[in-house]
Amino acid sequence: MNINQLPYVGFLGFDVFGTVVDWRNGIARASEDFLNLHGIDVDPLDFATEWRSLYQPAMQTIRAGERPWVPLRVLNRENLEIVLARHDADFGGMADAELSDLNRGWERLDPWPDSIEGLTRLKTRLPIGPLSNGDIAGMLNLARFAALPWDVITGAEITKTYKPIPQTYLGSAAAVGFDPEQVAMVAAHNEDLEAAKAAGLRTVFVRRPYEHGPDQTTDLTATGRWDIIAESLTEAADALGCN
Amino acid sequence: MNINQLPYVGFLGFDVFGTVVDWRNGIARASEDFLNLHGIDVDPLDFATEWRSLYQPAMQTIRAGERPWVPLRVLNRENLEIVLARHDADFGGMADAELSDLNRGWERLDPWPDSIEGLTRLKTRLPIGPLSNGDIAGMLNLARFAALPWDVITGAEITKTYKPIPQTYLGSAAAVGFDPEQVAMVAAHNEDLEAAKAAGLRTVFVRRPYEHGPDQTTDLTATGRWDIIAESLTEAADALGCN
Repeated sequence: MNINQLPYVGFLGFDVFGTVVDWRNGIARASEDFLNLHGIDVDPLDFATEWRSLYQPAMQTIRAGERPWVPLRVLNRENLEIVLARHDADFGGMADAELSDLNRGWERLDPWPDSIEGLTRLKTRLPIGPLSNGDIAGMLNLARFAALPWDVITGAEITKTYKPIPQTYLGSAAAVGFDPEQVAMVAAHNEDLEAAKAAGLRTVFVRRPYEHGPDQTTDLTATGRWDIIAESLTEAADALGCN
Repeated sequence: MNINQLPYVGFLGFDVFGTVVDWRNGIARASEDFLNLHGIDVDPLDFATEWRSLYQPAMQTIRAGERPWVPLRVLNRENLEIVLARHDADFGGMADAELSDLNRGWERLDPWPDSIEGLTRLKTRLPIGPLSNGDIAGMLNLARFAALPWDVITGAEITKTYKPIPQTYLGSAAAVGFDPEQVAMVAAHNEDLEAAKAAGLRTVFVRRPYEHGPDQTTDLTATGRWDIIAESLTEAADALGCN
């Protein structure tokens, strides 16, 4: 197929955690030895889910203007300590470097099986970049780890805001020199696409039914009228005419 | 050779105009038809030099705090109009789109013959990115045109300052998650390296004796004690142990 369903789009911005990479299995893998070493009795996959569950509430205080913007790695680190405290972990026995290293697990996540081929094909026609809540250093390190072929890194740190605040989308579009309607947001999360669409962007939904594990209940289907609905990034590449 | 002369460096930031790409011949090429069409009697290479000569003075008002930061494409456009006025060009006969297109000549510059191989080899070992006064959109478009394999785009727009203000170097290093001494500035301009070194960065001088044409008088030799002095980006890759 060689028909481009979004002919006026000049830039593709990607959600990353869940859409391009598998954070749940990656964080479980990064946490396993740490949990064993410190005798913290929790399944690493559950630990990943617990840690991730604090992601949205932590950003919310910044979105609401109650706290100045800080990069996601700072929020992830604070959230790690909250989760460890819930499991009565003894912080005295942990070196700061050990916690920092565990926190860098967010930069060592595997792509979904179709991600590299999909991004590589999309990049032949359009510039691509994360439009993520991750910070620049985190997105850079993750790209180097997972071989994600970004052209540029946009998103939260460029705009000092967090999605779904409109400015994250609008400021990212402006930074790469495009009007909002010339940018397509690619995400596995309907809420992300709702906010992107409200800000004037085009939308590509990529279904990731195992982001939260086999019993996932959210984002199993597209709930909005997105421009493209795909089962993978390679299917998104088909829809954009990128062979 | 496989010895890395900067073993503690984790990121390479590049000056772009002059160091990675040949702006003089590229702008001359972009200007030629325009100058002919409008009967502006100036050699395109001289026109390129004149246009470029306004680059530093335009940034100076921003560095001095006399003007809020604006992206380089805005300064380039203003400078274009100044140069055209000097040649008594009739603006009434020029469409805005025509001037915009000419201004985008700065995003369509050829790399020096060694640049792509050099960057590609350096990138095997270290993350690389422009640490340029160019804006993000301009650096992105130039990278797409010239196939520059950047991992990330740092520099003026990330920090809302212009080199050689220290914050341009320091803010870029911070954005990619490194201390200043873990970043090496790669440039063909001794002044750029002086400022980078003063800010705590490591330094790589790449000699570009034809940036300003065959009669170039500046930056023909390294004038400081730079960590690495190379004749090309491939030679810089040798010095960093990147085969």
